[in-house]
Amino acid sequence: MAHLGNSVEYGLHCLLWLTGPQAGPASSRDLAELQGVSTSFLAKIFPKLEKAGIVSASEGIRGGYLLARAPDRITVLDVVDAIEGDKPLFECQEIRGRCAVFGGKAPGWATDGVCAIHAVMLRAEKRMREELAATTLADLAKSLDGKMPAAMPGQVQAWFAARGAARTAAPPDGPKRRRRRPSA
Amino acid sequence: MAHLGNSVEYGLHCLLWLTGPQAGPASSRDLAELQGVSTSFLAKIFPKLEKAGIVSASEGIRGGYLLARAPDRITVLDVVDAIEGDKPLFECQEIRGRCAVFGGKAPGWATDGVCAIHAVMLRAEKRMREELAATTLADLAKSLDGKMPAAMPGQVQAWFAARGAARTAAPPDGPKRRRRRPSA
Repeated sequence: MAHLGNSVEYGLHCLLWLTGPQAGPASSRDLAELQGVSTSFLAKIFPKLEKAGIVSASEGIRGGYLLARAPDRITVLDVVDAIEGDKPLFECQEIRGRCAVFGGKAPGWATDGVCAIHAVMLRAEKRMREELAATTLADLAKSLDGKMPAAMPGQVQAWFAARGAARTAAPPDGPKRRRRRPSA
Repeated sequence: MAHLGNSVEYGLHCLLWLTGPQAGPASSRDLAELQGVSTSFLAKIFPKLEKAGIVSASEGIRGGYLLARAPDRITVLDVVDAIEGDKPLFECQEIRGRCAVFGGKAPGWATDGVCAIHAVMLRAEKRMREELAATTLADLAKSLDGKMPAAMPGQVQAWFAARGAARTAAPPDGPKRRRRRPSA
């Protein structure tokens, strides 16, 4: 599995649909079906984005997710950290202290400070994170806006509206159940 | 598992023992035992380093590995690539073309060029790789030399010499078998 996995890819693509003008909140089910990704997989991702303050959730049949702050204040790194959590590029096992010459008792000079090999990896991770922090959802949306035809945003809004209308017009048989989570 | 895994950590630590003055080639078994890591694990790593031209191998009872080029011409990135192979930070699944609005036929504008999300990840990977390429085995060895007491290189050489002497002085009973690989 890649270091930045499918969850990040799915989360970013679906968040992009929340950057434009919206009629209302979007459920993670609708976002998943619009984007063509697994609904159950996306239903696990959006609560993490909510916990990180990237989206806000509302409940009920018209409930769903909205961005919790402006897209130019949400970086790719914010989304990666929200979804992947604390996942280092390299996990130092401090093997520098295990040299056979030390006879099981590593001297201070061998283990003081950060291992030089670990330090290289930490610098590499810092560069990677700096680059991920340099792009926001607004930047990604702008690059998409520059490519898509003028009619596309309206088509997407119409798609969401049709989904919402279908949901409110035809309630399922049986006792009405309150949807506890917009992703349910 | 971290993106830059145990194999890279073990490989780098063991390669550092080959950067100084050596009496002769070192087997991967001796390197593993000197560094306190799994011998069978390291025996799988060194052939990859040999294939990448980072170490050269010699056979026989006194055989083993030497660096194939000067330590200031071997970067951390060379070692990572030799051991990890082609392991991208992010694997784009081109889900941008799956939008439900396209009805199964993604238009050219949606899939032309590199996906903007993939492009961010490729830039982040490039920064990470640039940083890994900025440090050589010579840099790492220099930082270690600055810490270790003057007697340490001699102790390590004595440790290798004792291992070699034990191997040549006490051949195993039974028919003599030629060791095909220094790592065997």
